[in-house]
Amino acid sequence: MSKPLILVTNDDGITAPGLKALVEVATKIGKVVVIAPDSPQSGMGHAITVNNPIRIDESEVFGEIESYTCSGTPVDCVKVGIFHILKRKPDLIISGINHGSNAASNVIYSGTMSAAVEGSMESIPSIGFSLDDFSHKADFKPTQNFAEKLIEKALNNHFPSNVCLNVNVPKLPLEELKGMKVCRQANAFWEDRFDERLDPLGKKYYWLTGEFKDQEQADDTDMAALKNGFVSIVPVQFDMTAHHAISQINKWKL
Amino acid sequence: MSKPLILVTNDDGITAPGLKALVEVATKIGKVVVIAPDSPQSGMGHAITVNNPIRIDESEVFGEIESYTCSGTPVDCVKVGIFHILKRKPDLIISGINHGSNAASNVIYSGTMSAAVEGSMESIPSIGFSLDDFSHKADFKPTQNFAEKLIEKALNNHFPSNVCLNVNVPKLPLEELKGMKVCRQANAFWEDRFDERLDPLGKKYYWLTGEFKDQEQADDTDMAALKNGFVSIVPVQFDMTAHHAISQINKWKL
Repeated sequence: MSKPLILVTNDDGITAPGLKALVEVATKIGKVVVIAPDSPQSGMGHAITVNNPIRIDESEVFGEIESYTCSGTPVDCVKVGIFHILKRKPDLIISGINHGSNAASNVIYSGTMSAAVEGSMESIPSIGFSLDDFSHKADFKPTQNFAEKLIEKALNNHFPSNVCLNVNVPKLPLEELKGMKVCRQANAFWEDRFDERLDPLGKKYYWLTGEFKDQEQADDTDMAALKNGFVSIVPVQFDMTAHHAISQINKWKL
Repeated sequence: MSKPLILVTNDDGITAPGLKALVEVATKIGKVVVIAPDSPQSGMGHAITVNNPIRIDESEVFGEIESYTCSGTPVDCVKVGIFHILKRKPDLIISGINHGSNAASNVIYSGTMSAAVEGSMESIPSIGFSLDDFSHKADFKPTQNFAEKLIEKALNNHFPSNVCLNVNVPKLPLEELKGMKVCRQANAFWEDRFDERLDPLGKKYYWLTGEFKDQEQADDTDMAALKNGFVSIVPVQFDMTAHHAISQINKWKL
């Protein structure tokens, strides 16, 4: 059987150590093509570039492995990868390994996960990987270990349609990781704050900052899994319809 | 009873005619504060500005009405509005009127809708309005008419928790609009294409383009409602968990 074709992308950019770690895993399993942003694109969510043109360049970062940079967002990378570079659908799209958790509501802000969501919109099995460690020198080995296992499972089982996977790994040594847990997105949110500063001309500017607050006590969420030493796997869908709310709004007698 | 506090934003920027049209509606109903991007932010999805600081400026665009521009995305505008300007939660957030439809999967790319989704993440009743007409000279009157009706209903009924509304209006004169229909997000997607061009230095660049394809024949979708002359209302949730897929992935024996 021929090797599966795997498209690899991320949101931290082509030079991020997390991308290198994921490419290492992917090359063990399939034929790999890399397309990653040419600059950091954290927090870009499902943004696409419509008001500006896009640049696409070949990259030597991964030596023999066919690699490209894109001036756009992670979602642009996936679109460019499928429709311009490969000109076919790959067997799998993987995104990451993100430097920092994308658990709970972070899924919606995350460029890493939005790339995976875009893959699922193209009916391609897609997985986003994130490690709960922002450090540039984070240890990606334990995440690599689980990523390899999960990718094999994803390629050898029926992948649910219209769904991608949001995989988060707690910052723990391999021997302390307890396994993988399929769970739901926690109701945990950022309590935002704007940090006010003065530029050299005396004009105000602001940094978005804040604290992440988990309001739930439930044990079936990704936040609970991470807290308990498990790798969390949340199936994520792009159908955002709140089906349960349709009847409620119909009572408004519009 | 005191007037409701309404935060108004959009993704086409502070000078867009669609924003002006929505502000006109809002001032009939409540006390209005406007915070809008200082430049067009179409297709920004749920992006937030984390790698750069944000600028916030007072604006005179709407005369007496308290108004601000923000250098960030529509989601940044909502965060700035709640946590920096109002320093409280408004009674309602409205976003738009977008120049162009945000029906079906467009909801996930749309800055207009992401602003409304962000509002729902803060437990604030939030509605995004879009008119299926990209023209700068679009006639917003029919949309204003329905927006006013719907906002009154939203303020006087129980608004579903963790949900916002995606409202799309077909490009039709008021007398041809048949009413409002609560529906689900259609499975309709962009078939992407990259338009290749050469810059003056002979280097390639690309524009994202393509065609929107509705693959469904169902009559309970937003696309069907629009096609049949109805204003579509889709309740949208930020919990992206594909609950139905959890048991399927558990069968992978991870």
